[in-house]
Amino acid sequence: MTAMSDRTDSLKRWIDQGKGASPADLVLKGGKFFDLVTGDLVSSDIAICDGVIVGTYGLYRGTKEIDISGKVVVPGFIDTHLHVESSLVTPLEFDRCVLPHGVTTAICDPHEIANVLGVSGIRYFLDCAAETIMDLRVQLSSCVPATHLETSGAEITADDLRPFIDHPHGIGLAEMMNFPGVLFHDAECLAKLALFEGRHIDGHAPLLRGLDLNGYLSAGIRTEHESTTAAEALEKLSKGMHVLIREGSVSKDLHALLPIMTERHSPFLALCTDDRNPLDIAEEGHLDFMIRTAIAHGVAPIVAYRAASISAARAFRLQDRGLVAPGWRADLVVLDDLEACRVNTVLARGRVVDDALFATRKTVVPVGYNSVKAKPVTAAAFRIEGQGRNLSVIGVDQGKIITQHLRMTLPERDGAVLCDLKQDAIKVAVIERHGKNGNIGRGFVHGFGLKSGAIASTVGHDSHNICVVGASEEDMAVAVNRLIEMQGGFVVAGGGKVLADLPLPIAGLMSDRRFEDVHDGLIPLRAAAKSLGTVLPEPFLQVAFLPLPVIPHLKISDRGLVDVDRFELISRLNDAP
Amino acid sequence: MTAMSDRTDSLKRWIDQGKGASPADLVLKGGKFFDLVTGDLVSSDIAICDGVIVGTYGLYRGTKEIDISGKVVVPGFIDTHLHVESSLVTPLEFDRCVLPHGVTTAICDPHEIANVLGVSGIRYFLDCAAETIMDLRVQLSSCVPATHLETSGAEITADDLRPFIDHPHGIGLAEMMNFPGVLFHDAECLAKLALFEGRHIDGHAPLLRGLDLNGYLSAGIRTEHESTTAAEALEKLSKGMHVLIREGSVSKDLHALLPIMTERHSPFLALCTDDRNPLDIAEEGHLDFMIRTAIAHGVAPIVAYRAASISAARAFRLQDRGLVAPGWRADLVVLDDLEACRVNTVLARGRVVDDALFATRKTVVPVGYNSVKAKPVTAAAFRIEGQGRNLSVIGVDQGKIITQHLRMTLPERDGAVLCDLKQDAIKVAVIERHGKNGNIGRGFVHGFGLKSGAIASTVGHDSHNICVVGASEEDMAVAVNRLIEMQGGFVVAGGGKVLADLPLPIAGLMSDRRFEDVHDGLIPLRAAAKSLGTVLPEPFLQVAFLPLPVIPHLKISDRGLVDVDRFELISRLNDAP
Repeated sequence: MTAMSDRTDSLKRWIDQGKGASPADLVLKGGKFFDLVTGDLVSSDIAICDGVIVGTYGLYRGTKEIDISGKVVVPGFIDTHLHVESSLVTPLEFDRCVLPHGVTTAICDPHEIANVLGVSGIRYFLDCAAETIMDLRVQLSSCVPATHLETSGAEITADDLRPFIDHPHGIGLAEMMNFPGVLFHDAECLAKLALFEGRHIDGHAPLLRGLDLNGYLSAGIRTEHESTTAAEALEKLSKGMHVLIREGSVSKDLHALLPIMTERHSPFLALCTDDRNPLDIAEEGHLDFMIRTAIAHGVAPIVAYRAASISAARAFRLQDRGLVAPGWRADLVVLDDLEACRVNTVLARGRVVDDALFATRKTVVPVGYNSVKAKPVTAAAFRIEGQGRNLSVIGVDQGKIITQHLRMTLPERDGAVLCDLKQDAIKVAVIERHGKNGNIGRGFVHGFGLKSGAIASTVGHDSHNICVVGASEEDMAVAVNRLIEMQGGFVVAGGGKVLADLPLPIAGLMSDRRFEDVHDGLIPLRAAAKSLGTVLPEPFLQVAFLPLPVIPHLKISDRGLVDVDRFELISRLNDAP
Repeated sequence: MTAMSDRTDSLKRWIDQGKGASPADLVLKGGKFFDLVTGDLVSSDIAICDGVIVGTYGLYRGTKEIDISGKVVVPGFIDTHLHVESSLVTPLEFDRCVLPHGVTTAICDPHEIANVLGVSGIRYFLDCAAETIMDLRVQLSSCVPATHLETSGAEITADDLRPFIDHPHGIGLAEMMNFPGVLFHDAECLAKLALFEGRHIDGHAPLLRGLDLNGYLSAGIRTEHESTTAAEALEKLSKGMHVLIREGSVSKDLHALLPIMTERHSPFLALCTDDRNPLDIAEEGHLDFMIRTAIAHGVAPIVAYRAASISAARAFRLQDRGLVAPGWRADLVVLDDLEACRVNTVLARGRVVDDALFATRKTVVPVGYNSVKAKPVTAAAFRIEGQGRNLSVIGVDQGKIITQHLRMTLPERDGAVLCDLKQDAIKVAVIERHGKNGNIGRGFVHGFGLKSGAIASTVGHDSHNICVVGASEEDMAVAVNRLIEMQGGFVVAGGGKVLADLPLPIAGLMSDRRFEDVHDGLIPLRAAAKSLGTVLPEPFLQVAFLPLPVIPHLKISDRGLVDVDRFELISRLNDAP
């Protein structure tokens, strides 16, 4: 049969089952659904054929029928911006972990793996997207490397992205985070924006306001997830941006943005998680957690659920989903309770999500083993020459990826500057690990509260060099060397030995194990970090974001400290401010 | 220069002018704009570069500046469904007539010309769309002929449409009005629906409700303009349709649908005119008239203006327009008064709309002259054989295209049934005029109030055969023969001669004159019809819709009376019901 005759055969089935002339493939019987157009809770069967909703507001017979008495159906949730890598598992495990929370569509930017592996990382994600039960949409990473102030594992040009722009699992250009590059005509930024003319272009511009924001938006950028205050979000909304409200494991903006979650704004809102780790997914949930939290804080259910589905779909031009209505994709979440967003059952394109469904997926062989090419180090690698007066120190705040640019005076010995635990000033270093140049950037960080030992990670946004913080140079070396040995992951070291570790051998970013195993591995890791005295609930995520030089104000790369506001390296730690 | 370097040069200009680094091409200074996201009236300059808005919420310098103190800017209006042919002028004249009312985008279905000329009519519209100042988008006509119950000038198959599906001035499949064909698997209907899978498919399904509506929607149809009651519109909204509220010259649904024009529904509403004649456009206005009427009847301005712009744009996937915001198309309407929707100035892609701008358009040579191929007739052509008892008679209601299926008993003489002016029963005939078969369909119609004479038209939806109504067979012949002589148009005859006429030589549907001339020609025509006693304010439009067999309940084609509910011809006028 031809594709056209396949399609007309489908149409005949949909029409016949929709008009009730033949039994539907599947009927959800006896429940209600939440009509996001009218706001009504509607008692109705829901008929489904071939993964498409064909009947609402009526009674249907089904070849298969599921009794959902007492339950409420809502459209499947759409996570509008996230990095699968931050879940520390492969896209197929992410699917198995997050889809049961009702997330039937996830729009991911494979930015992390692309920074390590280049286009082959993107291709791996696209291959996985062909197998996931959820609709995993892969944005094309716009900023690899994110800046010229760091050494990444790969560079991706507009020409590299061109072959993928109409890929069926693609969805436009990923977060254009180099907003200074846009405003100051960086050739590669403009080439990528030009390449995606007429397609969706996602944004990333924390704190960008006023006329500079206008300049950035004039380039055709339409969605953004970096608003951290209601005022910032309101300005972005008022300038035509679709605001993606984020609640990740580090960046948590939901509470600050509750004031903008009004019915008036609801067509222009969406939800996203950006970076969410397996512990939080297990303990709190995913978009379901965001929805229940918003409603618990007084957001009208129609606003929360619109943001989670139809409004998100419209922002990303996913025309086939977001409502419970005939002719729309049967991505459905059956809830025990609407306000608590307690997920009972999920349907992905009409299929009930369960272990058997996940078992139908083909395996996709991971890429990116053996990506950690750094050489073992000794404690001497972390010596910081210079004077202790008026030093630039990174100030970390709990749960924020924005850092402060602090000034501190630290003790000196033998021409080197030392940690000062009383002031909570410990060392941080970033070690290039892509086999390019062996750079080591060094500095001090405040806010971890570490009293001894070291924490190290090959997850270090966005170039994913090794990032290590420590109260002891010896333990920093132990942790880094263990990372090299296990080809990536997280390590906690103390007293000269490894206290806990979690291998992430896929590009140094993701485990090749089940998400349950990763979850179980994180618990002792977190406990080990806590035993060193850290006051941060998510010390690994906060380590991982220290090298991110597109987020204000002071960051560190393998090339040294970065003054993000001036978008330049700080050549000496005690330079004038 | 390559297209890519052109594009990056544009980006540089947009960014620089947006961030205020260089003067904008054009600045609207000192006014306010209506922010459709927040509902605020915002005091702000509006900066424009290359037809794109680059700055809001700020002060800008411009190479050119226009003082709009005291005025309010809103996004350009989008007419989501109309037939240019109903304005009786060419697309270029339509542009000149309607754009000054703020309609910067018009989504038209060239259904009428396509029924007469086939694909060459569609191609003519696409050629015109390349020249209009407004963004004229041409849907691809789905139902030519509309039914098998009439003789059209052309047939258009899915294969005929295939070459146009991605035309830059196209916009999906036009109103799928053959809803019985969809529900009962008509092969051509399904082939067209299959061809447009994943693209926009517009609907047309008056009174379709319940499970049948579900079946129709399951085919992927998403927008519709035929709701005539709030209950029908609410059902369509609740089933995921975007409701296009219509106020034409015949079909006037705005007042009935006011109850659904709420802020909650506003993301799912749009406005359209469908069929609007030059007199109404001149006397009342176009979408501006709809907006001011809705607001005058209590609709919140944010609802009316959203329906007219951003919500319409989203329904039809026009991602670049619908808000006054940086990066959005500079389709703008400057109003003297927001609530009265009094248009002061229109900007189409950043250009001020005036005579000089229209003068820049290239001429497009019209097609479809000499399309009236019927032979002259005598009064005998209108003799109706048979008995007068219990006849099926078309019942016309003022301002409605839906008709009643009446039963009347009429006088007989010499084996023929006669008009009965006391009962307001006059004759109606449809004469095939495409040179195919010379069919004449005959019947009676109630509701015109004609006391003498005849009214005839080559505009006769949708096959556009000659339709004539008359109290006198002699005058019916005079009118029809004048139509043939002038190759289409409208004629009023009385006392054995032509009282008034308006030539429409382009496919028998459109004038080749200026819209002002057509307007002036319609006034004596209307007066002549009134002199015959008609009680209908729009007798020509009501004549033109008598042959439309996709609108319930009783219609007439060249093949005879059509029972639309049963979707079949009535073989004898006094058949049992």
